[in-house]
Amino acid sequence: MGEKGISQAVINRLPRYYRYLGDLIHEGEERISSNVLSNRMNVTASQIRQDLNHFGGFGQQGYGYNIKTLHAEIGHILGVDKKQGFIVIGAGNLGQAIANYVGFEQYGFQLKGIFDVDLAYVGEEIRGIPIRHMRELRSFLTEVEISIAALTVPRSAVDQVIPILTEGKIQGIWNFTHNEIKVPEDIKVENVHLSDSLLRLSCNLTHLAQ
Amino acid sequence: MGEKGISQAVINRLPRYYRYLGDLIHEGEERISSNVLSNRMNVTASQIRQDLNHFGGFGQQGYGYNIKTLHAEIGHILGVDKKQGFIVIGAGNLGQAIANYVGFEQYGFQLKGIFDVDLAYVGEEIRGIPIRHMRELRSFLTEVEISIAALTVPRSAVDQVIPILTEGKIQGIWNFTHNEIKVPEDIKVENVHLSDSLLRLSCNLTHLAQ
Repeated sequence: MGEKGISQAVINRLPRYYRYLGDLIHEGEERISSNVLSNRMNVTASQIRQDLNHFGGFGQQGYGYNIKTLHAEIGHILGVDKKQGFIVIGAGNLGQAIANYVGFEQYGFQLKGIFDVDLAYVGEEIRGIPIRHMRELRSFLTEVEISIAALTVPRSAVDQVIPILTEGKIQGIWNFTHNEIKVPEDIKVENVHLSDSLLRLSCNLTHLAQ
Repeated sequence: MGEKGISQAVINRLPRYYRYLGDLIHEGEERISSNVLSNRMNVTASQIRQDLNHFGGFGQQGYGYNIKTLHAEIGHILGVDKKQGFIVIGAGNLGQAIANYVGFEQYGFQLKGIFDVDLAYVGEEIRGIPIRHMRELRSFLTEVEISIAALTVPRSAVDQVIPILTEGKIQGIWNFTHNEIKVPEDIKVENVHLSDSLLRLSCNLTHLAQ
């Protein structure tokens, strides 16, 4: 089955497979069975076989998966073998944490710029990349090809930033702001609502604990 | 239907309702129909009615929901009216971002401590809370009641920290580390895998864009 046959549900699970397979490579493993992977990932072996069947031919009965091949194939689907320009909007703690995380580079994301309105940050550098003033964003996007912008600004700033990103041909927004954002359909948005996540944990403590 | 009848799927959606209803209160709204909320949240009106039926009596045909009542009721389910002690393990950028976010306090989470092994951080303060050395964590947990620990340490430190948290009667771990973590069943874990999220966005750019 070709890449186009992969459902959104499988796509949503691929990053986790990719992460686990990367760890196995790191540990020096070469092959793994769906049963062992199942135990490790806490997913049923049949789910794993079904998901990884999309990358047919790599899993052989009784012999398991070649980890490196499978990792590379999933990486290709995820787009990690492309080099993608990446910027961070908002240079507060969260923006700095994202800009500082070198792990994203092994996934093909190259930090190209960091933007903020706060003059206390502007002119500083993170990993050799200068923090620029927000008013430079529009012209920056005409000069440098950027696929993804991580958005870590206060909610009051969102409405000003979005039009600059959409006009600047950003393809994806990694949204850490309080609200979901409205963008044209050809721009993909991935939301990370940390407070929703914390509330889910809180709710599970309250209602599901023994 | 009582609280016990609420499924995990509904629980997973509640934080988002809570956030939207909070925004509506902030905007001075008093009542809202499921149709208007549907438009705003990009969820079908029938899904909304079905979800909010668990809080029966608040939605009246043709009259809509009383926003404040519904917000308070969902907040109660989510546990925001309890005061919960909250600590942050790891005082790097991400740990600082979490410790600095005052928004969590309106959800009942009270920052009680921040811990790191890095002497450059130890002794500093975030919002009046001192950053303590990790070796103080065990005794701290015998003295202060903590529900939730946000875990933002490098993966090499995870195996040392988890036993201290579990022995210290932490109820929930908000896990930002690279790996899923293994804990006793009575401890709830909420994972935030930022690299998985970024890879999902990347994959959607590659395969679903026009």
